[in-house]
Amino acid sequence: MNYRYAVIGAGAVGGFYGIRLAQSGAEVSFLLKSDYEHVLNNGLRLESVEGDIQLNDVEAYSDPVEMERCDVAIVGLKSVNNPVLPGILNEVLNDYGIVILLQNGYREEEEIYRIERVRKLYSGLCFICSTKTGPGLIKHTDYGLVNLAEYGPGYEPLPPDSTAHRIQEDFNEAGLKISLKDNLHSARWEKLVWNIPFNGLSVALNADTRELLDNPYSLDIVYALMHETLRGAELNGAPVDKGFPEKMIRTTRSMKPYYPSMKADYDRGRRLETESIFGNPLRSVKDKGENLQCIEMLYRELSFLNPA
Amino acid sequence: MNYRYAVIGAGAVGGFYGIRLAQSGAEVSFLLKSDYEHVLNNGLRLESVEGDIQLNDVEAYSDPVEMERCDVAIVGLKSVNNPVLPGILNEVLNDYGIVILLQNGYREEEEIYRIERVRKLYSGLCFICSTKTGPGLIKHTDYGLVNLAEYGPGYEPLPPDSTAHRIQEDFNEAGLKISLKDNLHSARWEKLVWNIPFNGLSVALNADTRELLDNPYSLDIVYALMHETLRGAELNGAPVDKGFPEKMIRTTRSMKPYYPSMKADYDRGRRLETESIFGNPLRSVKDKGENLQCIEMLYRELSFLNPA
Repeated sequence: MNYRYAVIGAGAVGGFYGIRLAQSGAEVSFLLKSDYEHVLNNGLRLESVEGDIQLNDVEAYSDPVEMERCDVAIVGLKSVNNPVLPGILNEVLNDYGIVILLQNGYREEEEIYRIERVRKLYSGLCFICSTKTGPGLIKHTDYGLVNLAEYGPGYEPLPPDSTAHRIQEDFNEAGLKISLKDNLHSARWEKLVWNIPFNGLSVALNADTRELLDNPYSLDIVYALMHETLRGAELNGAPVDKGFPEKMIRTTRSMKPYYPSMKADYDRGRRLETESIFGNPLRSVKDKGENLQCIEMLYRELSFLNPA
Repeated sequence: MNYRYAVIGAGAVGGFYGIRLAQSGAEVSFLLKSDYEHVLNNGLRLESVEGDIQLNDVEAYSDPVEMERCDVAIVGLKSVNNPVLPGILNEVLNDYGIVILLQNGYREEEEIYRIERVRKLYSGLCFICSTKTGPGLIKHTDYGLVNLAEYGPGYEPLPPDSTAHRIQEDFNEAGLKISLKDNLHSARWEKLVWNIPFNGLSVALNADTRELLDNPYSLDIVYALMHETLRGAELNGAPVDKGFPEKMIRTTRSMKPYYPSMKADYDRGRRLETESIFGNPLRSVKDKGENLQCIEMLYRELSFLNPA
C-alpha cells in the first residue's frame, strides 16, 4: 500500500471502501460520530456480495485532533455536512493535503478546495449499492466501481497524475475497481444522470429502483429527467455520451432492487442532499438562461417534503 | 320548484346539492349504492357552515329501474364511474332528457351526450369544499358556487336557455349560488386551473391546500401548473383570463385548509380521476404539438401512485 488513509464518515460509502482498504493491509483510521463507542467495542462489519469482513481493532476516533495525520483523507460524509470539513481536514491532512471526496452532487469541490490544508482534491464517483444498516454495519449488494478524477478550478480537465495512479494501486490491491478519468466535470454530470432520477423519485414516489423501472409512468419520468440532465451537461460544456441514459437504465435493471441513499436518508428523517444533487445543477443552467422543468419540479417536491 | 330531480351518486357534491334542493321543497330522489341501507334507516345528513340539515324520509333507491322518471338528473359520480351512466340515465330520464353533470375533469361530456335518452346536457363546475365523511353524511366547510353551462358538440359556446334559467331558479330557491355561463369550454379550463395543482399536489405531496400555499416550493409548483393550464386553454381556443390563477390563489388562501377530492379518494384507496383531470387535457394539447411538462410529470406521478 502506498498511502496511509483517514476515513471521514464511515457510512454506506466511506465505510465500504475504508473497510476494504484496511482489510487488505492499508493503514486506515476512521473518524466516527454516533457509532464511535460501538465500533471501539465491536469493530466494523461489512456484509458484502463479495464476501463479509469483520474488522476488529479499528483505529477509531471521535475527535480529529487525536488522529495521526494521514496521506489521504477519504471523505464519505453527505454534502449537507460539508461545513464541518475545514475543522476536520486541517487536523488530519499531512503536508501533501490529498483528499478523495466520495460524494454525490455537483459543485461541492470549490468550497472544499479552499480549505487551507487541501492541496490535491480528487472526486470519486461511486457506482455502488451499499447501505449502512446499523451501527458500524455496512451492507453491500451490488457494484462498487469508483470513477476518480482530479478537481481543478472551473472543473478544468486534468489528466491522471502520479498520485491518482498510486491511489489506484492501493484500491486495486484491495480488490476495488477504480477507473481514472481526466474530466471530472463530465464524470459529475454522468453521475447526475443516475442520481437525479433514482434518488429523487425514490423519495417522491416512495419506490425502489425496480418499481421505478417496471412502471411505464415512472420510467417515462426517469427518461425525461435523464434527458434534461444531458442537456444540463451540454449547457455546462461537460458533454455526456447520448447513450449514457440507456446504459444506466440497463445497469439499474440488472441490479437487485435498491433504495438509493436519498431514500435511506429520507426514511431516517435526515436532511436530504437536495441542493447538491438538484439545486446546484439547476442553478448552473439558469445562469445560462435555460430551465430544466422536470428536474426543477422534482427539486421543488423534494424541498417541500424535506425542508432544509 | 320547476323540476323533479334525481341525484345519481350522493357523495360530497351530489349529496350537498341534492340535500339542499330536497330540504327546500324540490322532489328529489337519490340513487345510492353502498349507503342505501343506511340512508333508508337514518336519512341523509349535511353538516354545513350554512346550517346543518337532517333529511328524513329520503326517496332512496338502489336500482334505477325502480325510480320514477325525473325531469333533471344530477350526476354526482366521479368520472371514473361514467361507464355505468348509460344504464342509469336511460332508466331515470323522462322525455326531456335533462342532465346536470357535477364533475371535475375534461372531455367527459362527449360520451355522456351520446347516451340515448340524454337530450340536454349541462355541466356544473362546483367551487365547493365538501367531503363525504361517513355513510349518508356530507360535511361542507366552504363556498358552494356552481358555474353552469350547456354542452354542445366540440364545446361550442351556447347562451343559457330557458331550461338553464329554470334550473337556476330552483337552485336559488334552495339558497344555492348558481351562475349561468355561455362558454363551457372556458369554464372547464378555469376549473382545471384549480383542480390540476390542488388535486394533484395534495396526493403527490400528501398535503392540504394551506400547506401547499404556505411552502414556497410547492407554491412555485402550483403557479407553474396553473400557467401551463392557461397555455392549454389557449391552445384549445378556450381562453381563461390571465388573472384567474391569482384569483384562485387568493380564494384558496381564504379557505379553511382542505383536502381536495382526489386526496380523499387516494386515502380511501379509490381510483383517482387522473385521466379526466390530467390525461384528457394533456392529450388535447399533444394533438396540437405541445407538451405541458409539469402537468405531464404530475400526471405520471399520479399514474404511478394510483394504477388504473
